[in-house]
Amino acid sequence: MKPGGEDEAALAGSPWEECFEAAVQLALQAGQIIRKALTEEKRVSTKTSAVDLVTETDHLVENLIISELRKRFPSHRFIAEEATASGAKCVLTPSPTWIIDPIDGTCNFVHRFPTVAVSIGFAVHQELEFGVIYHCTEERLYTGQRGQGAFCNGQRLQVSRETDLSKALVLTEIGPKRDPATLRLFLSNMERLLHAKAHGVRVIGSSTLALCHLASGAADAYYQFGLHCWDLAAATVIIREAGGIVMDTSGGPLDLMSCRVVAAGTREMAMLIAQALQTIDYGRDDEN
Amino acid sequence: MKPGGEDEAALAGSPWEECFEAAVQLALQAGQIIRKALTEEKRVSTKTSAVDLVTETDHLVENLIISELRKRFPSHRFIAEEATASGAKCVLTPSPTWIIDPIDGTCNFVHRFPTVAVSIGFAVHQELEFGVIYHCTEERLYTGQRGQGAFCNGQRLQVSRETDLSKALVLTEIGPKRDPATLRLFLSNMERLLHAKAHGVRVIGSSTLALCHLASGAADAYYQFGLHCWDLAAATVIIREAGGIVMDTSGGPLDLMSCRVVAAGTREMAMLIAQALQTIDYGRDDEN
Repeated sequence: MKPGGEDEAALAGSPWEECFEAAVQLALQAGQIIRKALTEEKRVSTKTSAVDLVTETDHLVENLIISELRKRFPSHRFIAEEATASGAKCVLTPSPTWIIDPIDGTCNFVHRFPTVAVSIGFAVHQELEFGVIYHCTEERLYTGQRGQGAFCNGQRLQVSRETDLSKALVLTEIGPKRDPATLRLFLSNMERLLHAKAHGVRVIGSSTLALCHLASGAADAYYQFGLHCWDLAAATVIIREAGGIVMDTSGGPLDLMSCRVVAAGTREMAMLIAQALQTIDYGRDDEN
Repeated sequence: MKPGGEDEAALAGSPWEECFEAAVQLALQAGQIIRKALTEEKRVSTKTSAVDLVTETDHLVENLIISELRKRFPSHRFIAEEATASGAKCVLTPSPTWIIDPIDGTCNFVHRFPTVAVSIGFAVHQELEFGVIYHCTEERLYTGQRGQGAFCNGQRLQVSRETDLSKALVLTEIGPKRDPATLRLFLSNMERLLHAKAHGVRVIGSSTLALCHLASGAADAYYQFGLHCWDLAAATVIIREAGGIVMDTSGGPLDLMSCRVVAAGTREMAMLIAQALQTIDYGRDDEN
């Protein structure tokens, strides 16, 4: 931050501009590493389950992002996928907090299915300030800053205004649990939406990029049980700044730690989706 | 075609080279029209159902491709989505026949969900000779010519060698019928694969591009009931030339007109998928 003049005026509107710019720079840098890894041999270091693979690149990218941010912002806190998997607490305090998914779409990444993103969100006083998501293979940078709009590669994003479910393209993800009872609920929710004549349902393997499609108006609604705060933090700012709604699957306000979400271009659409869903219990991010 | 010399030698290996080159040129031209339309206002001219939308661009692109090919190859026959919807017969004779889907992923197109392709296949004596598929928004051109390999933007394609379902990324599409019995079978098939611990299941809204992901090794298997010969013709050549298998859902040989397919990188994987599936009856393309 430079003192005085124009810079100070700009910063008055956005006290976290320096953090935002660091996030953009690191997302692009991380994306380059991921793109390179995608062209190399598939090598998976360890896996907790066949569905939830943790790759070397995942570790590498998370370490890169966090170590750089720690250097620049030593008082800030971090919530990140890999660190949490290794036992770090996942609690959102009032301190400035970075919420990071180094590779969203890990299963896609392992298969080199080209739908993979870096997601960096930032919250202060438990309020989301900005989000940066980088679609690594298509080189699309999605950004949103509170009160300043949402953009993809510099182009302003605007959600769909659709309120009729029969005209809606709906996105969802399967979620990590694959026991018979959970699968039955997942499929039953999909059945309810298709019975309600949703125009189409898509499953692309990246919550973050699905939410970016919603922000850009290419889809009308999104719901999921079993996603984490690092899948949701950055995308929530981007969707809200594109004019959309992010809420709890109960129809109440979003709880970032509740592992469930409905998002839509309009409140009417979000409520229609929320009303159609049966709850799948995934616990809470801050209780595991 | 120029007579004599090098050209003649090349043509000896591929008697349909001139047709292939016309297909590439027209796919790129059509893709440009579709990309332009995607950036304009959504305007749908007519619809037969909420799920199967027919757009102005669909008509425009099909007319462009067919009129140009008719001029250059007046003795050839055509099977195409829009013409068939208007009552044209869908029969594969021994004559050189173009099998065309002007916009695969029409529902995606209507929503400007960026997964949309042009597909042009070509068969002689009921044998598929080449396929050209153009991913309009990502500007990826997939091609396959019988005996000459498959390529994406000039890079050779190679399917995955996976034989273990629990390590497989499986692609499918919902299909156009949405009555309760069909939906139940569709979801039950998905449940069977997830119970069998398929690593992931994706639904991207374009059969053609899903099959291209399979050809490129980014997915291990694909199955669908309710797709048409124009969704399948071009992709079948591309997958076979990338080393993959395209077969009937019964495990027997592919029947292009049967509205059902299993494709995989390996025969073992294709058989595992085929054995897991319950049949959904969609009739035949040549009997409707």
